[in-house]
Amino acid sequence: MRGVLEIPESLLPINEAIIAGLERVEACFDRQLETDIPPVAELCRHIERYRGKMLRPTLVLLTGLAAHPEAAGRLSSGDGLAGLWSDEHIGLGAVVEMVHMATLVHDDVLDDAEIRRRGQTVNALRGNEAAVILGDYLLASAYHLCSSVESRQAALAVGDTAMTMASGELLQLHHREDLSLDEPTYYEIVDRKTGALIGLSCSLGAAASGADDATVDALKRFGRDMGIAFQIKDDLLDLMGEETIIGKSVRRDLAKGKLTLPLIHAFNAASPDVRGRLLREVKNLGEAEGAESPAASAAVDQLVATMRDLGSIDYAKASAEKIVERAKASLGVLPASPVRDFIEFSADAVIDRRF
Amino acid sequence: MRGVLEIPESLLPINEAIIAGLERVEACFDRQLETDIPPVAELCRHIERYRGKMLRPTLVLLTGLAAHPEAAGRLSSGDGLAGLWSDEHIGLGAVVEMVHMATLVHDDVLDDAEIRRRGQTVNALRGNEAAVILGDYLLASAYHLCSSVESRQAALAVGDTAMTMASGELLQLHHREDLSLDEPTYYEIVDRKTGALIGLSCSLGAAASGADDATVDALKRFGRDMGIAFQIKDDLLDLMGEETIIGKSVRRDLAKGKLTLPLIHAFNAASPDVRGRLLREVKNLGEAEGAESPAASAAVDQLVATMRDLGSIDYAKASAEKIVERAKASLGVLPASPVRDFIEFSADAVIDRRF
Repeated sequence: MRGVLEIPESLLPINEAIIAGLERVEACFDRQLETDIPPVAELCRHIERYRGKMLRPTLVLLTGLAAHPEAAGRLSSGDGLAGLWSDEHIGLGAVVEMVHMATLVHDDVLDDAEIRRRGQTVNALRGNEAAVILGDYLLASAYHLCSSVESRQAALAVGDTAMTMASGELLQLHHREDLSLDEPTYYEIVDRKTGALIGLSCSLGAAASGADDATVDALKRFGRDMGIAFQIKDDLLDLMGEETIIGKSVRRDLAKGKLTLPLIHAFNAASPDVRGRLLREVKNLGEAEGAESPAASAAVDQLVATMRDLGSIDYAKASAEKIVERAKASLGVLPASPVRDFIEFSADAVIDRRF
Repeated sequence: MRGVLEIPESLLPINEAIIAGLERVEACFDRQLETDIPPVAELCRHIERYRGKMLRPTLVLLTGLAAHPEAAGRLSSGDGLAGLWSDEHIGLGAVVEMVHMATLVHDDVLDDAEIRRRGQTVNALRGNEAAVILGDYLLASAYHLCSSVESRQAALAVGDTAMTMASGELLQLHHREDLSLDEPTYYEIVDRKTGALIGLSCSLGAAASGADDATVDALKRFGRDMGIAFQIKDDLLDLMGEETIIGKSVRRDLAKGKLTLPLIHAFNAASPDVRGRLLREVKNLGEAEGAESPAASAAVDQLVATMRDLGSIDYAKASAEKIVERAKASLGVLPASPVRDFIEFSADAVIDRRF
């Protein structure tokens, strides 16, 4: 999670190793997308700019270390740790990042988003058609890479996860503007859309180091919870964050009729009167022209103020914190070690991040 | 190729076997898409209606027979032949059909198409967002199925082919409205977009029967050529076919700025004067509101008449026929047999079909 954490000194050797490992992941990622077709190469160069925290490959690498029988003996130096990652760890890191990129590219089409990581989105720059096909190209490349370097078990898990993610998107689309969406359905959507791939990343890393099933399963649960907390934090950032800090379009969720955890809480917590007002405010917002218009912006501010009064912002924050605690409890399957501390630290960063 | 061929009597036992084999493919396809999430199930039911000729699984089955060491001894009865297909043949048939369906769903988004197989497209009925995600879901499902039933070699080939197909789409998009598109680039696009998956179907079927590399490669070349001829025929049908017969939106190619083989020929064959008129006619068409408006329809008629005068329609027909002959020559790698005759017959049907 480069750039997100302020790493305590005791964990610096692990951080050094991760930086070295991510460089190998990036090289593998780039190699897989090499092509002699200029228009394809040009689009692939564009998405290099989307590369950010590299959360998913980082988790492949971290769980790969956590489950590695030789990690304890090498903790004194980052170099020694970095030597523990096989080509399988590195390839899987590139695979999960590529699947993630594909979903970002398609999500931006679905969301009509114009800004991502401070640059224009593929759809804004090159049209929806190019963005749809580029996403397909990235998905196909991820599948190909996965089949070329890994066990069939990993390929199966990647295919299964990609199905889960798409079904989560379809479920979300189905419930768009469904103002009666309940928490269980919200969590189902978020677990599929975001939890599944982060859970996969954690399980793949551990499995590639030969971890037993109980460890792989616990780390998968850890990752899914981390993903869910990550998404709740995203909900909050979308509502309250500033575009200049986050580097992507904000306040899209409401404009696209997506129900977020704070809003679901607000509907349930509100008195009948306030509930009626909330409904009107959300509907007005849906009808406002453009998410960035002054009218829409004022409507969101009003809505956020109402939610804050109802305790919904605090509720969502507390929910995310509780889920991070549950995630950290899953790490009990690992022996105490600086690598485990680092993973715990990453989980906390999900809540603490400002972008 | 159900419904396309009038099968000669000598080939009926093979046809019976294919019908039985395709039923197993369909059952496998449906099983793979089973889900307990209602909105996903509903969308999957919709695409069942897209199922048409099942060309790709038919070719997996046919090449699977052609390369099977025991096929010659079982030719007297369709039942005996059908018993030769392993779960691998059937699974691969479902995989290639699923990849094909995914591209149809995304193509309809790219083409703004409203009609497919006499029904509304997913994008027309449920919006572009649902169609984009459904395509992703189908691709993921194909990849998952492929990893669950097959050798890693097959999964690699499927990933590679999906990359090739997407790069062909991107190349086509890059050359949209490029009135100087040349034949080699046209063939490169068509080979990637259509040839690759049909070539894959032929090579997978043969490989699953244990064919040697020379046979697998020759059948792959056969399939790629068949795919290219198929696409040229599609170009002609898009220009000259009737929507009621084809069952999908026609005359989209010109409206979307796609250059087809007849048009490329026309630009090259025309005198400077006629060329100027052609350019104007194509540009007018691009600017006409809606492909189905009377003005656009009259403009296409005019353009087709000019192309006919220039010999471009005949040229495209002759090119497709030549490629089918080349495809059939690749079949020389197989010993003479009714199965080989059936495959030849399928190749001829590409040219003869009216839809």
